[in-house]
Amino acid sequence: MSHEQPQGLQNTMTIHVAWGDCDAAGIVFYPNYFRWFDACTHGLLESVDLGHRSLGARFGVIGTPLVDSGASFMSPATYGDSLTVVSRVVEVGRSRFVVEHRVSIAQRLVCVGKEVRVWAAQDESGALKAVAFPDEVSALLKKNS
Amino acid sequence: MSHEQPQGLQNTMTIHVAWGDCDAAGIVFYPNYFRWFDACTHGLLESVDLGHRSLGARFGVIGTPLVDSGASFMSPATYGDSLTVVSRVVEVGRSRFVVEHRVSIAQRLVCVGKEVRVWAAQDESGALKAVAFPDEVSALLKKNS
Amino acid sequence: MSHEQPQGLQNTMTIHVAWGDCDAAGIVFYPNYFRWFDACTHGLLESVDLGHRSLGARFGVIGTPLVDSGASFMSPATYGDSLTVVSRVVEVGRSRFVVEHRVSIAQRLVCVGKEVRVWAAQDESGALKAVAFPDEVSALLKKNS
Amino acid sequence: MSHEQPQGLQNTMTIHVAWGDCDAAGIVFYPNYFRWFDACTHGLLESVDLGHRSLGARFGVIGTPLVDSGASFMSPATYGDSLTVVSRVVEVGRSRFVVEHRVSIAQRLVCVGKEVRVWAAQDESGALKAVAFPDEVSALLKKNS
Repeated sequence: MSHEQPQGLQNTMTIHVAWGDCDAAGIVFYPNYFRWFDACTHGLLESVDLGHRSLGARFGVIGTPLVDSGASFMSPATYGDSLTVVSRVVEVGRSRFVVEHRVSIAQRLVCVGKEVRVWAAQDESGALKAVAFPDEVSALLKKNS
Repeated sequence: MSHEQPQGLQNTMTIHVAWGDCDAAGIVFYPNYFRWFDACTHGLLESVDLGHRSLGARFGVIGTPLVDSGASFMSPATYGDSLTVVSRVVEVGRSRFVVEHRVSIAQRLVCVGKEVRVWAAQDESGALKAVAFPDEVSALLKKNS
Repeated sequence: MSHEQPQGLQNTMTIHVAWGDCDAAGIVFYPNYFRWFDACTHGLLESVDLGHRSLGARFGVIGTPLVDSGASFMSPATYGDSLTVVSRVVEVGRSRFVVEHRVSIAQRLVCVGKEVRVWAAQDESGALKAVAFPDEVSALLKKNS
Repeated sequence: MSHEQPQGLQNTMTIHVAWGDCDAAGIVFYPNYFRWFDACTHGLLESVDLGHRSLGARFGVIGTPLVDSGASFMSPATYGDSLTVVSRVVEVGRSRFVVEHRVSIAQRLVCVGKEVRVWAAQDESGALKAVAFPDEVSALLKKNS
């Protein structure tokens, strides 16, 4: 009976909380976490050469627009803190994938976020539509890094 | 048999999407929606004289920190758009409440967000703890405006 | 001998300072003023139908990129404040113009900013270059509104 | 005859331009440069143990509020770029100092900014007033690092 390993592409980034990231209560103004989630998902994709610019050139898609996002906040962070963000693909569907972001300061968990994104192209009218992942991309997202 | 009315404090704000709110794809960079949700919750509370400054003075609390937030994105918005944000208290517990934000451009729904917040004071050590709503506040949050 | 009238296109916008616009000292985090300056210049140009989208369609330019900006800060603003921003074109050259933004709360001056922008098109290589204002645009920027 | 050395405290930081830092033209939305200037000045002061928190504890001041800021923009930056920001104290007065920030991508100069800040305490009424630098602080700001 094997111990289940976490699956899915993973990447870690470090964020230094700046004075200007905090609100009048002296803690991180929460929309900044979503700004960092976005940057961390870009970093995650770039780690396997799926940076924004290569998506269009190699696969004819316009990016990975967000369809859903959310976060739970466990403890506050303030300026001077160094946040470790571990981002991991936790689900890969036909044309959508889910990234989980775990933000911590040393051993203390600060928040856990989630982004649901789709692999999207433009149809003839210019409207966005989700399209199926190429096998190559699907494999990269699922890989246990 | 009566038709069920939506319950809970409600407020509407208008947001003008600026050039700087958009990303390189020309659509709103999504963390801005959470920035607007926060502003709309402040507006909602101010509409019944529960603005940030009065919370400390009248009730001895330090604010309504966020414990959870999320949003689903239905259609994009871009600069020049006028967003109508209808914010409504959809749940009131002992010390927490949930605000739903519906963002639309005319009849088109752009996104629906949610914030879970707590009524919080500092304990002796300076740490935050959720405290029960005063009846007056609970009644204001539940009122059908 | 006549009293000199201020010349140049002028527009006034109102900004409501949000909780999230303030830093841990409880006053507006200063880069936000530049965000508002940018929005106010867009508003100024839109007031004479020179909104960003019409620039390309009508004049073949890509926008009015900034070459210089600055501000002096006289007094602080905080959340809940309503800022009145009076934006005025104070200089119009061959291909560049200067906008001054005066930010006040009632009679109190908060800050005065300046943006120097150019009328810019792309050359054959895709690089930006400043081009001379069409007479129509120059006249609109100089008009005493 | 000696070659004149640049004087004044100096520090270098690296900024990675994120997708969300760019506007719909695909280049950095300019208020972000001021956000980075602020972070770089904090980094500069922290490099000699004058971080925000130590200012109050050690010297009884509330911080180094900005009285003037400005920037000239030479060339654009976009997402994926790594910005090198060299921040240097170029002037130290009785109670004010000037920091220059030079932002470049490899050998290409992107922009040059300036911040004028004061050493500030609160008077009896709670209002801010500029106070003279302690000799120790003045010496740190002037040092040739």
